[in-house]
Amino acid sequence: MTQARTGLWIVGAFGGVATTTILGLIALRKGLIDQCGLASELPQFEPLGLLRWDDWVIGGHDIRRSSLVCEARKLARTSRAFDESLVENCRAELEQIDQSIRMGVLWNVGPTIRALADAECQTKAEHPWESIGRLQQDLHEFRTANRLDRVVVVNLASTEPPVDAAKLPAAWTGMARLLRDSAETTLPASTFYAIAAMDLGLPYVNFTPSLGSTPPAVCQLAEQRGTCHMGQDGKTGETLLKSVLAPMFAHRNLQVMSWVGHNIFGNLDGRVLNDPVNKQSKVVSKDNVLRHALGYSPQTLVSIEYIESLGDWKTAWDHIHFRGFLGTPMVMQFTWQGCDSVLAAPLVLDLARFVERAHRAGETGLLTFLAPFFKSPIGVDEHNFERQFQMLESWVERTSQAQKSP
Amino acid sequence: MTQARTGLWIVGAFGGVATTTILGLIALRKGLIDQCGLASELPQFEPLGLLRWDDWVIGGHDIRRSSLVCEARKLARTSRAFDESLVENCRAELEQIDQSIRMGVLWNVGPTIRALADAECQTKAEHPWESIGRLQQDLHEFRTANRLDRVVVVNLASTEPPVDAAKLPAAWTGMARLLRDSAETTLPASTFYAIAAMDLGLPYVNFTPSLGSTPPAVCQLAEQRGTCHMGQDGKTGETLLKSVLAPMFAHRNLQVMSWVGHNIFGNLDGRVLNDPVNKQSKVVSKDNVLRHALGYSPQTLVSIEYIESLGDWKTAWDHIHFRGFLGTPMVMQFTWQGCDSVLAAPLVLDLARFVERAHRAGETGLLTFLAPFFKSPIGVDEHNFERQFQMLESWVERTSQAQKSP
Amino acid sequence: MTQARTGLWIVGAFGGVATTTILGLIALRKGLIDQCGLASELPQFEPLGLLRWDDWVIGGHDIRRSSLVCEARKLARTSRAFDESLVENCRAELEQIDQSIRMGVLWNVGPTIRALADAECQTKAEHPWESIGRLQQDLHEFRTANRLDRVVVVNLASTEPPVDAAKLPAAWTGMARLLRDSAETTLPASTFYAIAAMDLGLPYVNFTPSLGSTPPAVCQLAEQRGTCHMGQDGKTGETLLKSVLAPMFAHRNLQVMSWVGHNIFGNLDGRVLNDPVNKQSKVVSKDNVLRHALGYSPQTLVSIEYIESLGDWKTAWDHIHFRGFLGTPMVMQFTWQGCDSVLAAPLVLDLARFVERAHRAGETGLLTFLAPFFKSPIGVDEHNFERQFQMLESWVERTSQAQKSP
Amino acid sequence: MTQARTGLWIVGAFGGVATTTILGLIALRKGLIDQCGLASELPQFEPLGLLRWDDWVIGGHDIRRSSLVCEARKLARTSRAFDESLVENCRAELEQIDQSIRMGVLWNVGPTIRALADAECQTKAEHPWESIGRLQQDLHEFRTANRLDRVVVVNLASTEPPVDAAKLPAAWTGMARLLRDSAETTLPASTFYAIAAMDLGLPYVNFTPSLGSTPPAVCQLAEQRGTCHMGQDGKTGETLLKSVLAPMFAHRNLQVMSWVGHNIFGNLDGRVLNDPVNKQSKVVSKDNVLRHALGYSPQTLVSIEYIESLGDWKTAWDHIHFRGFLGTPMVMQFTWQGCDSVLAAPLVLDLARFVERAHRAGETGLLTFLAPFFKSPIGVDEHNFERQFQMLESWVERTSQAQKSP
Repeated sequence: MTQARTGLWIVGAFGGVATTTILGLIALRKGLIDQCGLASELPQFEPLGLLRWDDWVIGGHDIRRSSLVCEARKLARTSRAFDESLVENCRAELEQIDQSIRMGVLWNVGPTIRALADAECQTKAEHPWESIGRLQQDLHEFRTANRLDRVVVVNLASTEPPVDAAKLPAAWTGMARLLRDSAETTLPASTFYAIAAMDLGLPYVNFTPSLGSTPPAVCQLAEQRGTCHMGQDGKTGETLLKSVLAPMFAHRNLQVMSWVGHNIFGNLDGRVLNDPVNKQSKVVSKDNVLRHALGYSPQTLVSIEYIESLGDWKTAWDHIHFRGFLGTPMVMQFTWQGCDSVLAAPLVLDLARFVERAHRAGETGLLTFLAPFFKSPIGVDEHNFERQFQMLESWVERTSQAQKSP
Repeated sequence: MTQARTGLWIVGAFGGVATTTILGLIALRKGLIDQCGLASELPQFEPLGLLRWDDWVIGGHDIRRSSLVCEARKLARTSRAFDESLVENCRAELEQIDQSIRMGVLWNVGPTIRALADAECQTKAEHPWESIGRLQQDLHEFRTANRLDRVVVVNLASTEPPVDAAKLPAAWTGMARLLRDSAETTLPASTFYAIAAMDLGLPYVNFTPSLGSTPPAVCQLAEQRGTCHMGQDGKTGETLLKSVLAPMFAHRNLQVMSWVGHNIFGNLDGRVLNDPVNKQSKVVSKDNVLRHALGYSPQTLVSIEYIESLGDWKTAWDHIHFRGFLGTPMVMQFTWQGCDSVLAAPLVLDLARFVERAHRAGETGLLTFLAPFFKSPIGVDEHNFERQFQMLESWVERTSQAQKSP
Repeated sequence: MTQARTGLWIVGAFGGVATTTILGLIALRKGLIDQCGLASELPQFEPLGLLRWDDWVIGGHDIRRSSLVCEARKLARTSRAFDESLVENCRAELEQIDQSIRMGVLWNVGPTIRALADAECQTKAEHPWESIGRLQQDLHEFRTANRLDRVVVVNLASTEPPVDAAKLPAAWTGMARLLRDSAETTLPASTFYAIAAMDLGLPYVNFTPSLGSTPPAVCQLAEQRGTCHMGQDGKTGETLLKSVLAPMFAHRNLQVMSWVGHNIFGNLDGRVLNDPVNKQSKVVSKDNVLRHALGYSPQTLVSIEYIESLGDWKTAWDHIHFRGFLGTPMVMQFTWQGCDSVLAAPLVLDLARFVERAHRAGETGLLTFLAPFFKSPIGVDEHNFERQFQMLESWVERTSQAQKSP
Repeated sequence: MTQARTGLWIVGAFGGVATTTILGLIALRKGLIDQCGLASELPQFEPLGLLRWDDWVIGGHDIRRSSLVCEARKLARTSRAFDESLVENCRAELEQIDQSIRMGVLWNVGPTIRALADAECQTKAEHPWESIGRLQQDLHEFRTANRLDRVVVVNLASTEPPVDAAKLPAAWTGMARLLRDSAETTLPASTFYAIAAMDLGLPYVNFTPSLGSTPPAVCQLAEQRGTCHMGQDGKTGETLLKSVLAPMFAHRNLQVMSWVGHNIFGNLDGRVLNDPVNKQSKVVSKDNVLRHALGYSPQTLVSIEYIESLGDWKTAWDHIHFRGFLGTPMVMQFTWQGCDSVLAAPLVLDLARFVERAHRAGETGLLTFLAPFFKSPIGVDEHNFERQFQMLESWVERTSQAQKSP
């Protein structure tokens, strides 16, 4: 039996996470690396029959012109994220994928991201509805050219400034009308990609804190087109730790008085987050977990600062001040030294596989069982990582059993 | 309806954990402190109808002569564990409890613990069976004098050297015969207290890494006398963290290459653990968790060192070296600065309440649902803290429902 | 021979550092504490013949009404800075000193400090020259009432917003004229106290990052009145560490690429520094050291955040990213958990003693040999702590020898 | 003017530090790296007229057969110490140097080091005096073949077990007689190399904690042959930090109550130190500094543990518990993540240059001004790093001035 070929379309395809994801996928195919870091390779997910690495075809959008080899070398050299020889060994495949990367859109991305964009992209005069049409044309050509059964669209582009979601139309018909009738919009680029993909019936994943498919009107579109989606903001490091440590304090009835988290790093994402407007989306997303997992709101502080020399190595220091029995104050501190792109990339591959499987199984709407992968899982109140992981395991059980039934 | 009065009999009653437990119980009764640090006060345990703080009467064994006021002051002054005014406010009650503390036994506790004992205790010439009889006489008098329905016995004494459990008789009859017939034994003091208690039908908790009720023959005794027990080694700090962090690494398929944990502290427990023989029991117990929670054995190192100036403040530094995607090595480190007695004491009160409730409900044998409180929960393979906590929650549900049924 | 009695006049007398300084001085007199933390008690300073603790009389200014006992208890209870029994043992002496604390001035302290002030202080309508006259009247009365030979004035008040020093008159005559002729001024309170003291010939120490005696015109006043002074910003914790660690990196030719320092604490000083305007004075002062000690400017980040639960315990995390041989990047991190007032108070006593000695020896102008005590020592380019300490030792040698000569 | 060619003869030439030293020297010559990490390149040392990198010729002894390319690749791959492309770029030069590496000696190196040795080396049956003769023959041939004016011998071999120096003869004549007359000796290999070199008039540096040239009889030999030497144990990381931090605590009169240092790493040196006998030499050396720099002995603990996954990356955690004013206990902690070979290698080059210069200037005996480079500088009581550095600067000044005089 030949397995169907599936596309993975990456928005922000020349970014650090995207480059590492693509490099990793090629390296997996060539047997150059093992399955380390890939949750979807855990034994409990075997019954799902997830796609193999050979089954995926890559394409994407970006607002900068670059080449994957150049971006991968930068990660190897300036950040020591991985060995440069890995890039050389995957060079031909990376160069071929460069051919499938198209020009993205810049709607409401803020001046810092806009400044990074290619001149052609910056000066493009398009009506909102034209932008969506162009994105869909790119997806359509990718699907046809590669004879793909399915395409999973994943947003890995830089964090956009926050949008006042309360002012958006609640229904898809209203939002569609606005996009068609007005030359202006408050919707950000991430939502354009979500609409373009889901209107074509393709599943969509928002791995960033940007708006993406979060608005109710876009969720409605997903239901109407019979496709699925999830977000938002991949949970890779400090927040992942919060989602296992906070429940521990809660179960011991230890009162967290303050939780301070300072994050420093120096990649492109860091440069964008250095703009206070873009940073705000991120900080809110990182801070949510504690309140939910503890059941109350201790004083918290989350900082994200751009320190150039660190490159892709995100270092977090967290200081947790808590009260124990008899009111005695105690302290836990941790430092996390993780390579950001290398932590995120396998989650992107995991998500692509799980979402493809869910779409194949006919799931529509929000895939809430993917909560363990997100800092702010849409539609999910559970922020305890272990219980989120159990949600995923339950879905696996249901889906595997459905498969076996006639 | 007047609730039954219940005894809490503490082995090692003048130790730091015991002193803090007793001081805390009095302070709770007098409304001097809040419920911080007490898991049994969490809302999900309300349906159980646990005993109130007023319902408990305290007594115990120790091998040193001292007074609770003196021990509590030492914790306040040299360790800054809590404010000395708290001790003064509970002085009368502490002095009264001193009257209910009896001389313990020294069987196979090793030279370091023996050297701490009172001269009378050291020179006592007793046959093993006489020792058990004396301990039971103490428990009997305590129960009668205070007209108690139930007595929960908790072992908080210093860690004994390890015992080769494989050489012990497998059945209670065999063990009982040996204790009766021979003037010598390899059984340690902790097992004497366990036998004394359970032979009288009293529930027993082993909060230390000592042997206690772990031998199959002693487990059999529990079943025969229709009582319940659990152990071993209270999970207060570094190991608690391992049992939430290791599953996180496992769920992300991040390969832990090495996990180093250095612990330093300066209380009496630390002085005993400074003896390599006694330390061995502890290190084994702390190291178990990783293998179970990860599913493989990374290189591990656990050190426990006596640093006098730290007093009761146990400071742990853990260095976790792990491999991510593409084989990239990364590091997480944490430091934990916790006051040992203050972390352990509320767990002792929690355990006493849960065990009393289980005994009241007619549970016999090992109370495996108490796993979240122990480093090495007897009879339990689950070392993931969240899943252990769910075991406890399931029991609560079962027990609460049974209560409601006619 | 009876030694002369000397006054120590503290600006900000009810603050945390001041309260701890005064409590410590009393405790030293009564033999309740040892000399720990007092540099002036080191053997190398013995030849100086510094004043004994009995020789000092305390008074001061503050803008809040309070009592030293109340402030000291707060430090003991909410911050666990020291044992409350120490306060009780010094109660009578503290209450007596309350009588010698007068109402200060609020010139250009910024809205955050102003909001903390007593209503009477806030509404006082005074011409600048009247303010100086009132402060001098307080000092005069203190000196007369206690028959003091000398009074050392030390500024311990909250950090004021920065002042554009370039716009101030360069000469004392110009500044004096402005103060006399205009109802308004840009000079902050700290400079008012400096002028008031030095115009009377009294030595002045600025232990804060506020302007104080730094303007050239005020330095000129010191010379004209034959008195001495020094500042600014006491070097207690993180910056002290920078001034020993940065030279180490320099001597090994290890290139510091970035140095990030995050400070969190929760005392009154922290609340004032939470106002970005006041914080700016502090951050600049803390950041100076690196540039001087390294000889180049790596990327630096200094944050100071108010975390209420920490009280007086200032916790700093520093992350130092450096390049070694072959360009290999490496990392040093440190955390510093120090009690702010307890670290600062002995330095205040040390400075009072050294300054008194210098004044007695006839020194005038800037006392640059006190550089090791300050983050931004006025008129000193040396930021290597060890070499600053050697400057102090050289002065001791010179002064001790002068003493011996006929 | 052509500058004289000088040899650098390395004992332990295939070890991690040696390999990095040699690789670095070649890379400096080829302009592939900058001067980062090299103290001798600081501006204050310019007047000395130190040798240029082109002036050095490399040779050495080792007990293992290997190749520098192979050892360098291992450091690049398993430890990520530097980029592998650097090795490839220096390949030809490294292979040529392999030709000048001769078989060393195994006298009293302990079983762990012996087990690492080549079979030929292990089975060699030599009289002590023959061993010295063979080593000298190797040095002689190296000097002749390369027409060298001078050869500096540096010991970088693994740490030997401690030797009871008190039992050794005090004078060189006595030691020489013993070596000639007896087939056995308690002298370790490191001392054999020292004797071989200095007996030929060559300067010798002991960069390890092994005995080397420390015995008085060997010091006497240096004086008699008019040559110079220094040791012992290069100061690269944790101890370097102690020698700047301990003086800071001393100058502030802050009482260090305990100083705990845990070191973990996984290179060959670590494997040797995992043998408790070899480790003892190291721990003693690391612990000396505190006592001298503080003037008293707090409780200290130094551990060095072999954690394979860390490779050459030595990670140290230090916990410093100190008492401040009013007896308040506080804590400083630091972690140091340094690549051991990369930290040590430039110091070896620095020492070779300074020792060559001193020998050229006619210095004989111990070069105590090199104290800042050593954990246990022979003949030096000063353990304050800054003051040690000033000793070096003073020598530079003296030597530069002597140069200028006619």
